[in-house]
Amino acid sequence: MEYTLSKIATNDGHGENSAFFDGWKAYDSDPYHPTKNPNGVIQMGLAENQLSFDLVQEWVKKNPKASICTNEGVDDFKEIAIFQDYHGLPEFRNAVARFMERVRGNRVRFDPNRIVMSGGATGAQETLAFCLADSGDALLVPTPYYPGNDRDLTWRTGIQLLPVVCESSTGFKITREALETAYKKAQDSNIKVKGLLLNNPSNPLGTTIDKQTLTESLTFTNEKQIHLICDEIYSATVFDQPGFTSIAEIFEENPKSYNPNLIHIVYSLSKDLGFPGFRVGIIYSYNDTVTNCARKMSSFGLVSTQTQHLIASMLSDDEFVDRFIPESAKRLAKRHEILTRGLAQVGIGSLKSNAGLFCWMDLRRLLKEATFEAEAELWRMIIEDVKINVSPGAPFHCSEPGWFRVCFANMDDEAVRVAINRIHEFVMIVQTKKQRYIRRGKLEVSLSFRRLDEIMMGSMKMSSPHSPMSSPLVRAMT
Amino acid sequence: MEYTLSKIATNDGHGENSAFFDGWKAYDSDPYHPTKNPNGVIQMGLAENQLSFDLVQEWVKKNPKASICTNEGVDDFKEIAIFQDYHGLPEFRNAVARFMERVRGNRVRFDPNRIVMSGGATGAQETLAFCLADSGDALLVPTPYYPGNDRDLTWRTGIQLLPVVCESSTGFKITREALETAYKKAQDSNIKVKGLLLNNPSNPLGTTIDKQTLTESLTFTNEKQIHLICDEIYSATVFDQPGFTSIAEIFEENPKSYNPNLIHIVYSLSKDLGFPGFRVGIIYSYNDTVTNCARKMSSFGLVSTQTQHLIASMLSDDEFVDRFIPESAKRLAKRHEILTRGLAQVGIGSLKSNAGLFCWMDLRRLLKEATFEAEAELWRMIIEDVKINVSPGAPFHCSEPGWFRVCFANMDDEAVRVAINRIHEFVMIVQTKKQRYIRRGKLEVSLSFRRLDEIMMGSMKMSSPHSPMSSPLVRAMT
Ligand SMILES: Cc1ncc(COP(=O)(O)O)c(C=O)c1O
Ligand SMILES: Cc1ncc(COP(=O)(O)O)c(C=O)c1O
Repeated sequence: MEYTLSKIATNDGHGENSAFFDGWKAYDSDPYHPTKNPNGVIQMGLAENQLSFDLVQEWVKKNPKASICTNEGVDDFKEIAIFQDYHGLPEFRNAVARFMERVRGNRVRFDPNRIVMSGGATGAQETLAFCLADSGDALLVPTPYYPGNDRDLTWRTGIQLLPVVCESSTGFKITREALETAYKKAQDSNIKVKGLLLNNPSNPLGTTIDKQTLTESLTFTNEKQIHLICDEIYSATVFDQPGFTSIAEIFEENPKSYNPNLIHIVYSLSKDLGFPGFRVGIIYSYNDTVTNCARKMSSFGLVSTQTQHLIASMLSDDEFVDRFIPESAKRLAKRHEILTRGLAQVGIGSLKSNAGLFCWMDLRRLLKEATFEAEAELWRMIIEDVKINVSPGAPFHCSEPGWFRVCFANMDDEAVRVAINRIHEFVMIVQTKKQRYIRRGKLEVSLSFRRLDEIMMGSMKMSSPHSPMSSPLVRAMT
Repeated sequence: MEYTLSKIATNDGHGENSAFFDGWKAYDSDPYHPTKNPNGVIQMGLAENQLSFDLVQEWVKKNPKASICTNEGVDDFKEIAIFQDYHGLPEFRNAVARFMERVRGNRVRFDPNRIVMSGGATGAQETLAFCLADSGDALLVPTPYYPGNDRDLTWRTGIQLLPVVCESSTGFKITREALETAYKKAQDSNIKVKGLLLNNPSNPLGTTIDKQTLTESLTFTNEKQIHLICDEIYSATVFDQPGFTSIAEIFEENPKSYNPNLIHIVYSLSKDLGFPGFRVGIIYSYNDTVTNCARKMSSFGLVSTQTQHLIASMLSDDEFVDRFIPESAKRLAKRHEILTRGLAQVGIGSLKSNAGLFCWMDLRRLLKEATFEAEAELWRMIIEDVKINVSPGAPFHCSEPGWFRVCFANMDDEAVRVAINRIHEFVMIVQTKKQRYIRRGKLEVSLSFRRLDEIMMGSMKMSSPHSPMSSPLVRAMT
């Protein structure tokens, strides 16, 4: 070809070919449906919050004026459709700021004039990257982390993400030591570190970051005079103790101790309300220059005014918000309990968690060997035999193979029941060796189960003698 | 400050400080209102299409199922809110492709699978820039051109726009010679030219590009093996002969003659339907790699699914579309006629145009001297004395001072009438020198009118002897 495209278009910076995306494709070609395709793949790889739409739909029916497409609201159609100020509708900014305060138990204040829109948290992350760092610069990110970060923060900006290695032995806690190690490593390689990106609560861990760790992290970035970006997209999904602490609280408790120009929050309604389709992303920076610059950049990904208008009405309805937040958390707690108990019944553990739309499942001892190749092999087996799409730890940059993210809020109770049954059956079959499924004549399945069985035998051999196991499957650390 | 932001955040690549934006600020601080502020500034600097909202609102009322916020449509709320596939809702892609065909008189076909979403044409332009060129590379752009291009195509991508100088003497026609000159100039400076950006119909000219010029342009880019981007955002605003020819037609008529990998169309519903708030941008590329890459990039600026859903229903309603397109054009034609006649009555000419939401007004001979300083001075006077915000040619990179863009579709008939009256009065006052307004005791106004008068006297002295003028104002070339 005589013409050329850009380097960005021809490199693989988007990373869509990772296993994270492969799993979605497997699901897409054979999706589970209770009646039409009961043996299809169950999608547990999507961090979606579908549990409380009845509350939303009920509200929508009761509030026809919230929409510009109802008889009650259509008179506003023109004004809303032509509104193109990148500051956003004032009522939208107010409502979002207020909602963010409520989610944080009204312990902090958010200035509506600092609310900057973006195309989801996806757009927010990229915008902040463009504002804070030049091509070649780096941000530190504790592992495991949301794989989309690689695309969102680095692809078009040319910046790099450097891992801060966190380990299961400490519950994947972010330590000052790990931060310093990562920072030093970058310095040794002559890479300019411009900031630290935290995700609180964490995807994929499903845990909130405790106050002390947040304080330490902020002290670290403040000392180094680098930026702290907190992605708090899962803030309203906290369903258990300890509760959620926002970086805004740490800052406001000791505003004199930290340079506000270095603190930035990313938010979105994709998870807390479950509206990823609406693309409502928010950048909240305490830095005026960043706020102004990000707002100008928001022209590339403004929120549709049709959606701003709806969200403004919905989130300024205190009664609705006061009911939605706790009810949604309650339902997530229940779903989390059903899944983790179901797993525990057959000896599968997961990291103790209190937030998010997923749990972080420990299948380390199921691995043939402690490598990411073995993790990928196990993952393919889970897709092909158990027909559940979970996400392996590798694309999350987890430092230890064998962890898997299992999403639990993107399906109905029945699908969860089927998924748990499948896992149970799978484990039972493995436990009773080949007899049962050969009797049933499940020849094709037996072949791959045999493969799994061999792996598990290997894994058994590997498991340490001082932890005698009744099952090759592991009760994980919790 | 010990910490640093990015170069992008600290350079002035956004360009918001140009006069183009200043005018909006002037309007914002003193906006005209028929009763509340009848002496306020009339905004004629906004290329908005507000003339046909009655048709849209009527349709909305008749189609409650088109919205997820009505009793009739709310059952789809959840499915739409959680939809996050960057391919977009299939019905959206289909409807948009079909609509684009209709706007082009069904003379071409658009493949729904090539429809890529973006945050308005703003996002579409940036996305294409990221796909086609590396930092430092250049795109050629005929002048005058939409000032937003500077921000959209260059700010975060690091590419540059190089002017292809078009002149009033040929009606701002794009000539092969001008293209070659610009291309050669870039080569001489060792700048890699990656493409040519056309805007058809043109903002600010309000003219369509004729078939021959399109063919020549495509031949030029094809020969040089560079990309051709056609921004066809105003395609359904064509209200007069000659009609609109899309680059898609030129290509499809002789598909063997051109490399399809080099042809890309930018579209949006901001102008044709008048929905800039909804942020519906479209990239249509004949290049598979670009289509795929742009679709991945669309994650940064997807269209809200709430909006996709509405647009899908609206644009797949053939009856509505068949009525809307000609009716909207008819109303634009009428408005254009009222404005240009109103201007002509007092000797102000404008480029003969057949499309868009504005006319390109010629005030060259009103300039004290043929400089952009004089243009800026005249523009400030128009804002301050006539209290109309029009846009001077400078931010459009016009090569000749004295041209102004006057938008006519973002207001009601009454505001146009007031604007024309103000212009008439202004011209009358100037013609009868100071007597009348001194008699009226408009002292404050007289001061600045005197300033204008002096300038016009200067201008009169400058005007060539073989064009005797009854008024210092000019009947422009049309
Ligand atoms: C931690 C985290 N950040 C950002 C995003 C992107 O969210 P959005 O849909 O708002 O772009 C996600 C989505 O999965 C996420 O998990
Ligand atoms: C020629 C041209 N291209 C692109 C745009 C940006 O439009 P959108 O609102 O779709 O981002 C405009 C808006 O004025 C324009 O005139």
